[in-house]
Amino acid sequence: MAAIQQSLSTSISSSTSTFLGQNKLRFRNQNVSMPGKTSGIVRCVATPSTEKTSYKTQVSRNENLAKLQAGYLFPEIARRRSAHMLKHPDAQIISLGIGDTTEPIPEVITSAMAKRAHELSTLNGYSGYGAEQGEKQLRASIASTYYANVGLEEDEIFVSDGAKSDISRLQVLFGSNASMAVQDPSYPAYVDSSVIMGQTGQFQKDVEKYGNIAYMRCTPENGFFPDLSSVPRTDIIFFCSPNNPTGSAASREQLTKLVQFAKDNGSILVYDSAYAMYICDDSPKSIFEIPGAKEVAIEVSSFSKYAGFTGVRLGWTAIPKALLYSDGFPVAKDFNRIVCTCFNGASNIAQAGGLACLSPDGFKAMMDVVGNYKENTQIIMDTFNSLGFKVYGGKNAPYVWVHFPGRSSWEVFSEILEKTHVVTTPGSGFGPGGEGFVRVSAFGHRENVIEACRRFKELYK
Amino acid sequence: MAAIQQSLSTSISSSTSTFLGQNKLRFRNQNVSMPGKTSGIVRCVATPSTEKTSYKTQVSRNENLAKLQAGYLFPEIARRRSAHMLKHPDAQIISLGIGDTTEPIPEVITSAMAKRAHELSTLNGYSGYGAEQGEKQLRASIASTYYANVGLEEDEIFVSDGAKSDISRLQVLFGSNASMAVQDPSYPAYVDSSVIMGQTGQFQKDVEKYGNIAYMRCTPENGFFPDLSSVPRTDIIFFCSPNNPTGSAASREQLTKLVQFAKDNGSILVYDSAYAMYICDDSPKSIFEIPGAKEVAIEVSSFSKYAGFTGVRLGWTAIPKALLYSDGFPVAKDFNRIVCTCFNGASNIAQAGGLACLSPDGFKAMMDVVGNYKENTQIIMDTFNSLGFKVYGGKNAPYVWVHFPGRSSWEVFSEILEKTHVVTTPGSGFGPGGEGFVRVSAFGHRENVIEACRRFKELYK
Repeated sequence: MAAIQQSLSTSISSSTSTFLGQNKLRFRNQNVSMPGKTSGIVRCVATPSTEKTSYKTQVSRNENLAKLQAGYLFPEIARRRSAHMLKHPDAQIISLGIGDTTEPIPEVITSAMAKRAHELSTLNGYSGYGAEQGEKQLRASIASTYYANVGLEEDEIFVSDGAKSDISRLQVLFGSNASMAVQDPSYPAYVDSSVIMGQTGQFQKDVEKYGNIAYMRCTPENGFFPDLSSVPRTDIIFFCSPNNPTGSAASREQLTKLVQFAKDNGSILVYDSAYAMYICDDSPKSIFEIPGAKEVAIEVSSFSKYAGFTGVRLGWTAIPKALLYSDGFPVAKDFNRIVCTCFNGASNIAQAGGLACLSPDGFKAMMDVVGNYKENTQIIMDTFNSLGFKVYGGKNAPYVWVHFPGRSSWEVFSEILEKTHVVTTPGSGFGPGGEGFVRVSAFGHRENVIEACRRFKELYK
Repeated sequence: MAAIQQSLSTSISSSTSTFLGQNKLRFRNQNVSMPGKTSGIVRCVATPSTEKTSYKTQVSRNENLAKLQAGYLFPEIARRRSAHMLKHPDAQIISLGIGDTTEPIPEVITSAMAKRAHELSTLNGYSGYGAEQGEKQLRASIASTYYANVGLEEDEIFVSDGAKSDISRLQVLFGSNASMAVQDPSYPAYVDSSVIMGQTGQFQKDVEKYGNIAYMRCTPENGFFPDLSSVPRTDIIFFCSPNNPTGSAASREQLTKLVQFAKDNGSILVYDSAYAMYICDDSPKSIFEIPGAKEVAIEVSSFSKYAGFTGVRLGWTAIPKALLYSDGFPVAKDFNRIVCTCFNGASNIAQAGGLACLSPDGFKAMMDVVGNYKENTQIIMDTFNSLGFKVYGGKNAPYVWVHFPGRSSWEVFSEILEKTHVVTTPGSGFGPGGEGFVRVSAFGHRENVIEACRRFKELYK
């Protein structure tokens, strides 16, 4: 896409705004006749020019889209990776960049998906539209597996095609008047979807923040948990734990403070628990473990990082019945309407896979996959520790957050890519609070992780 | 969901707005401390009441969601069907209501999906995140199968999890300031997603229309093609052909007028071609068959009604590079950003199925499925014709649009359900222009269609 887009945009920039303004005036009237092509009019503007001027609609570009900066982080990394490959065609590139799973999906899970696919070619096994909210059995299974001890029920679970899609559907739910807080650094989809929905002001280059978003700074100094006393009230608070990118999991005490903060402000907490199964200490695995959270929180989660479903696409959002807007209207009821209007359910084959994930054998297999990535994480942590770096995260998450004090994240990203052919993720891509850090993902095959670490040791010895 | 929602909403309505207003004033201040529960305050309002009052957040409900009327059409039909089943537990209900496919997916297609699922459990066959826009091979295959003769290319195709999801993503793309025109009647997702995005005014009960949407009336009198001379300019024009629900396909001459109308107004045409493979005369199967359409149109389509993918979820949206906003910015470039930020690609297993659909064997199998439903359509048309009804559609679409002049659609829907146990769709559910019509879907098993028609003959003989 990048290449097309570049070629698409170049021929446009030379049109003068004067002429665009003129067109606008002429054609904004209703039913005014307009020549099939404006080329005759516009051609005289650019002199001399060999550019083919094009017809333009009279639809204004959505100004919120225009606010977005550069590319979405991960496609930008993919672009740089491709450029590196062109420059070094023989290099053995290792990707520890985007959090993309690499281990095969356990056979007990893929078999269930294959079986469902085959059944779809039989009269008895065929099914068409499913419930937009997900198949009843899967919703029940998610509720009993993850939320039995906190009392969430099947009808409070909305199955989705992944957390990223649901984050955007939540933004559509909240609408353009809602105000947001996010951890800084944080997963870019929260901020970018907020910008797209028109909740934010312009990007302020000096501070590298969008207007009208509260950035909650998370640093080694505050244990990656924001100083809530300095956070203004917002309608919505996005909070991811275990955190992407810092790898830090909030403690029970911290999350109790967070829930109380939301309650004190009457805010809704959108809690992203996509990495909860990586937790190995007593940090809560769900926000609903915190008393009172059902009245303030929504939880978004995913099978992507547990079962390798990044390409299969399956996740869920839990919205308790007890979560109410200021007028007492249940949030879940409006979200249900969004899901029914803007979505038609996750793929039935993926849902069969999800159900298999939550069977006893499937769950054990998922835990093995998670365990394998956790071993990778340890290898990466040990490597950077041995090189004298300050290293964060890793314990409860598949991400290692390495500090390069005083250096630019993109500069370190480029240095590592150039000298080791390893793709990482620059911390500043997650917000200004990520500057000076690089995120190293543990989602690689073991031999690649070991080889990457060998190269890191060579570079930074 | 419906049952929960009802119970969720009842306990709210008795709260007085005075008290809500008071809460609002008190807690809107930043960082103001608020008691854990407001029950002490609110309890005194309702006297006497046994209702348990609940904590409410101070987040205002999105006013656009509040504009939406009743339930989304198809869940509402499902609700009435369930109620009917409770009342008549022994009735043999036949659904010719929502356009839900019933024929198994051809084995050549499900095998490809099963194969892909199995491969995901192998080291070589595993893949994680795919391109958000869809796999290159599938995009190329869609372009060459459907758009080779109109010159659309692979990078102008965005693969999706279905047309409904993409319609909403397009609305997010256009934003809340865009103005809309829709056919009346039309598929409810266009209007409802427009309401959700804040593009419309309130619902006007007298005319059964939302403010700030141009409803383009499509009736037997105008051959189900709107009188464009009476349609005001809008930024966006949704147009579905072959049409859901009227079953009518616009001719080349009509679509040429439509493209010219869009061009005269500088509008963007969103053309829904989800039923194009049902066309059996020389009506265009793609809007891009019309000269100049690439400069004004987007096409949304789907595998749902061709291959029975309603549950598998796979569709696509074609956005030509030549489609530009008034400032010359390419629409496809912004849509690409939406897709990358708000979506993570269709399920890789579904995409393997899509690729199989477009193989020579798969395509032939899809045409057989389509042919089977077309035979159903003929049976339904013959039945209503023989009973003396005026019947529309059917020829180029799997929908038969039956006229019950002077009667209410919901009344006829109920009469048919009550007396024949057949679920249809009330025309007024698609907009005020559908009043007096009922849509009968041909997406049933042959024996069910024949049995439904036998019952229709008994009822209306």
